[in-house]
Amino acid sequence: MGIRTAVAGASGYAGGELLRILAGHPEFEIGALTAGSNAGTELGAHQPHLRSLAGRVLAETTPETLSGHDVVFLALPHGQSGPLAAQLGEDVLVIDCGADHRLADAAAWEAYYGTPHAGTWPYGLPELPGHREALRGAKRIAVPGCYPTAVSLALAPAYAAGLAEPDAVVVAASGTSGAGRALKPHLLGSEVMGSMSAYGVGGTHRHTPEMVQNLSAAAGEPVTVSFTPTLAPMSRGILATCTAKARPGTTAAALRAAYTAAYAGEPFAGLLPEGRWPATSMTLGANTVLLQTALDEAAGRIIVVAAVDNLAKGTAGGAVQSANIALGLPEELGLTTIGVSP
Amino acid sequence: MGIRTAVAGASGYAGGELLRILAGHPEFEIGALTAGSNAGTELGAHQPHLRSLAGRVLAETTPETLSGHDVVFLALPHGQSGPLAAQLGEDVLVIDCGADHRLADAAAWEAYYGTPHAGTWPYGLPELPGHREALRGAKRIAVPGCYPTAVSLALAPAYAAGLAEPDAVVVAASGTSGAGRALKPHLLGSEVMGSMSAYGVGGTHRHTPEMVQNLSAAAGEPVTVSFTPTLAPMSRGILATCTAKARPGTTAAALRAAYTAAYAGEPFAGLLPEGRWPATSMTLGANTVLLQTALDEAAGRIIVVAAVDNLAKGTAGGAVQSANIALGLPEELGLTTIGVSP
Amino acid sequence: MGIRTAVAGASGYAGGELLRILAGHPEFEIGALTAGSNAGTELGAHQPHLRSLAGRVLAETTPETLSGHDVVFLALPHGQSGPLAAQLGEDVLVIDCGADHRLADAAAWEAYYGTPHAGTWPYGLPELPGHREALRGAKRIAVPGCYPTAVSLALAPAYAAGLAEPDAVVVAASGTSGAGRALKPHLLGSEVMGSMSAYGVGGTHRHTPEMVQNLSAAAGEPVTVSFTPTLAPMSRGILATCTAKARPGTTAAALRAAYTAAYAGEPFAGLLPEGRWPATSMTLGANTVLLQTALDEAAGRIIVVAAVDNLAKGTAGGAVQSANIALGLPEELGLTTIGVSP
Amino acid sequence: MGIRTAVAGASGYAGGELLRILAGHPEFEIGALTAGSNAGTELGAHQPHLRSLAGRVLAETTPETLSGHDVVFLALPHGQSGPLAAQLGEDVLVIDCGADHRLADAAAWEAYYGTPHAGTWPYGLPELPGHREALRGAKRIAVPGCYPTAVSLALAPAYAAGLAEPDAVVVAASGTSGAGRALKPHLLGSEVMGSMSAYGVGGTHRHTPEMVQNLSAAAGEPVTVSFTPTLAPMSRGILATCTAKARPGTTAAALRAAYTAAYAGEPFAGLLPEGRWPATSMTLGANTVLLQTALDEAAGRIIVVAAVDNLAKGTAGGAVQSANIALGLPEELGLTTIGVSP
Repeated sequence: MGIRTAVAGASGYAGGELLRILAGHPEFEIGALTAGSNAGTELGAHQPHLRSLAGRVLAETTPETLSGHDVVFLALPHGQSGPLAAQLGEDVLVIDCGADHRLADAAAWEAYYGTPHAGTWPYGLPELPGHREALRGAKRIAVPGCYPTAVSLALAPAYAAGLAEPDAVVVAASGTSGAGRALKPHLLGSEVMGSMSAYGVGGTHRHTPEMVQNLSAAAGEPVTVSFTPTLAPMSRGILATCTAKARPGTTAAALRAAYTAAYAGEPFAGLLPEGRWPATSMTLGANTVLLQTALDEAAGRIIVVAAVDNLAKGTAGGAVQSANIALGLPEELGLTTIGVSP
Repeated sequence: MGIRTAVAGASGYAGGELLRILAGHPEFEIGALTAGSNAGTELGAHQPHLRSLAGRVLAETTPETLSGHDVVFLALPHGQSGPLAAQLGEDVLVIDCGADHRLADAAAWEAYYGTPHAGTWPYGLPELPGHREALRGAKRIAVPGCYPTAVSLALAPAYAAGLAEPDAVVVAASGTSGAGRALKPHLLGSEVMGSMSAYGVGGTHRHTPEMVQNLSAAAGEPVTVSFTPTLAPMSRGILATCTAKARPGTTAAALRAAYTAAYAGEPFAGLLPEGRWPATSMTLGANTVLLQTALDEAAGRIIVVAAVDNLAKGTAGGAVQSANIALGLPEELGLTTIGVSP
Repeated sequence: MGIRTAVAGASGYAGGELLRILAGHPEFEIGALTAGSNAGTELGAHQPHLRSLAGRVLAETTPETLSGHDVVFLALPHGQSGPLAAQLGEDVLVIDCGADHRLADAAAWEAYYGTPHAGTWPYGLPELPGHREALRGAKRIAVPGCYPTAVSLALAPAYAAGLAEPDAVVVAASGTSGAGRALKPHLLGSEVMGSMSAYGVGGTHRHTPEMVQNLSAAAGEPVTVSFTPTLAPMSRGILATCTAKARPGTTAAALRAAYTAAYAGEPFAGLLPEGRWPATSMTLGANTVLLQTALDEAAGRIIVVAAVDNLAKGTAGGAVQSANIALGLPEELGLTTIGVSP
Repeated sequence: MGIRTAVAGASGYAGGELLRILAGHPEFEIGALTAGSNAGTELGAHQPHLRSLAGRVLAETTPETLSGHDVVFLALPHGQSGPLAAQLGEDVLVIDCGADHRLADAAAWEAYYGTPHAGTWPYGLPELPGHREALRGAKRIAVPGCYPTAVSLALAPAYAAGLAEPDAVVVAASGTSGAGRALKPHLLGSEVMGSMSAYGVGGTHRHTPEMVQNLSAAAGEPVTVSFTPTLAPMSRGILATCTAKARPGTTAAALRAAYTAAYAGEPFAGLLPEGRWPATSMTLGANTVLLQTALDEAAGRIIVVAAVDNLAKGTAGGAVQSANIALGLPEELGLTTIGVSP
């Protein structure tokens, strides 16, 4: 008898990826699947690639339909997880793939989301110092945002090692699935194919304060992040180019060594061999963040490039990884480091 | 101790997909990885998505490097498998992902390939009547071509049920990985992105006689196949539109019933619910062929559309499925019906 | 002082392409731009690529806003052109890019569209025998559908020359712009990128009777068309693979000769040199249909592959070509045979 | 009788785009087309989209084949233009689309290219102060690189207005045509589709010193540029995200005003209306650079995003614009501001 697991938001992209991973996981038993406006329809109408679950009918997302499970994954628009989680048992492991419980700073939340802060949960990025320990036995977990997953793992080691000044500049390209399934004109295939575009420029993207939080923690001082997201003509993947002014004396070797040390023993994050640069195709469907570092001596900056699958390690894979830790299962269970390529 | 397994041609696309699947299979233990001109280099230089195997060094493809294994997968250009297999032990299971041993008709082989026929091996498409039985305990298996996998499963049931005239017309769109990793101008990203193109028109594609062979066997009479392949701006996947003149009296219901019956109990091939049409994204990375049927009464034709991942069920997944059968393992072991989407 | 020209439906894809072409045409002067729900907004909000017109405000589509022009292009959903055109002056050249006036057979219209037939206008495919003459001086023109443009030009010469049996089988792949700008889930970039899918299978696509009409006229007898459209992961372009049973005695040379003769002197349609196959990238933004022929002797079928830009020659370019003819301008004026590639 | 024009490197992507533009230009008459290893073949074998020129046979690239023309465009690999131009008449207008004559600093050339510097020609970016004047009547012109075109136009106004500190950080995504037609594994369609990747990280890209040169000139002091290029899954287009620390007192309004002033009256460069962000699709095939600015107050940085077609305004369009100026023709002749979209 497996761990009874419910997924709320099963008809969206994050929900679908959760189900893809859970269906191949040896310990989870997939229970209730719920949705908002798609409640009452078959999962296969929205997620036809999930063959073994296609005939399942979606229930409405309510505390009642989600009750009776050991684990509940929430893949909901921000603002919905807080009230819902409050009605789920305290002994149930609730894993929120949305934004509601990621930020420790209520003022930052309110500045970016304009609603009251729902509270702060243990943060599901075990590769950052201290977080893995906090996840063991946790009953509430906030899954990091997809951009912050890539950017935090890309820059935290440099900050922790004192190699960079606290003014990060990040430009990241994301596949369109990061914007979800909303019917917006700029997300139509005709618009996105063959085109790169910018959005959320000037520090307005809601993932910004989460990066600030993580990098400031790593640096031990406030770090500013100039973050520009761009939309790339692909369905999945994030390529984040992360730079910061190098501290005096920083060498390419010291930079590389900081990352080698930071991710030694980490199954899901790490440096590529020298001379190979990350591509999102290396991570498609995998639970990995792949990194490479460089020091630009003329410009006096460190550059760290990170590739991640926004739906896998960037959302659903990271969620399952944290669930494994919380439940005392092997951290790698049901997760793969091997991407689907070409 | 697992089943010792070698892969020849590990730096190509079919070889990479074999390794992706084998790495997640509970019974196979990956031994020698060999290559042609890439021998001596690290696998990760060619297949950076295969993280857990990236540091492996490729050996040369020779009988010696392939010896000492229980199973040898060959993912080689046509013409190379025959001589090589002759030097591998008779008790070794040799699975040829290339074309050399697919055709029963030596004259057809010579007409299309211009070289002497290497012989005929048991054919690895267990969903076609009779083949699963022939695969049990086999020591040599010919993996079907990617197009014939889709087209044969799309039309065989109609022919077996006597619903169609023996003149099939097939137009299929394939992703570029079907053309392999050869450095040809028309396969450059700049050329293929945003463009559909035709090639191999007029019955010249080498997969044509294989379709003729399979459909004629199903029909119990010679079937001609007008086959036109096209190149689509995507890396993976085949969408095959397969039509034939309807036999008098054929109804949409009878057509559908033939497929429901033919694939009842098949884990990896089957009809979608009515009203849903196959898309290659439903099969990406999965070992499935998904089908839908229609009867065009005005034109008097049946139409069956099939979607398949050319590298998965169309090559490497099909190869592992047949290996499972040959070795007496559960047929579904290590294979998934769930695609990676979006 | 140029020819005063209005475009109704200026915020859609066909409307945008009309404006792109008209802006480079030396004789047309762009007047009113109208829209439905987008009336009142700036054109640049919808068509940011049309720099020189971006600040124009869209008027509502009414007989009043369209009055006072010499030429009115209608790029509207089907069903809207008929009533609107009836309120435009008889001396105004009205060019309907929609479907309303393409079919001569009212019964076929009603079977496919379910509404009363609006009437039949001169048909804007001058490369088909007889049509160019009918367009000279015309005041009402029906622009062909994008698929029928490709398919009719691909098969009419073979039928006119008596080389093929009257049972065509056509499979065509279209870019997503063919589906317009409607916000439908299956048109999202995340869904279409990396995927081929089928739709409108079994003769249900509304362009089918238009193909039947054109090919029957060419053959001088009723031709059936089994038409399957597919959706390709690209914004623009149609690649149509068109086949028919070869009449006894048809040779590859006779087939080729029929097309050479049919399109001798045609500026916008023609055969590629032997050995080169059409790709949609060859036609992007150009007013050309490019063709290649083959005879599959084993299968006894002719195959003609056509590439066209669905928005250019397939809609807006074809519309301007017909307008040139109707107005007595040089047919090629403002149109290019050169595509944008890569 | 037009201006006799030769194109060297006609079978490459830059050469093809030159020919596309020249074929629509009312003053240029296309003469010799030359190539390297493709000499002796038909242009249509390499550039099938250039219908009206497809039958032209490519000559070898030599001073002799290029003689007898008024204008010679060179679209050659770097290192080849210098020696060749020395053998062309001094009264011939030679326009080098390659890198050889862009840099004023011989040491920077040698550091990045490792060969002796060929000299410095008037720089073909008329939107930068002083350059338009220098191009009038010039007989030798160096066309800017594609990345420097976007980045220089994106940041020069801010530096000229004293709004930014001299440490630029630029991350740009380019379509694959920027890498030319070389047969390299990482440029295969199977590799690039669906994937973003980094390359030339750490200031190693050869376009870096050109950006430094232009931005330092604008700032009146040395500017460092941390430049990271990335490869996007599209054929054409560059989206450059360009940032720099804001000087104290810089406001969003002042930033915007600097760009409005800098590009007032410029036909081919300019700001989008507030609230609209550049997308490369807005510029496809057009000779425009489209910009938008933002001030990130929390991070203390200005961000300017630029979109350009790397082959059009980024290479061939810019070349023709400069040729127009040098020859005393209207600057906009034969060039369009309207992109092909969707």
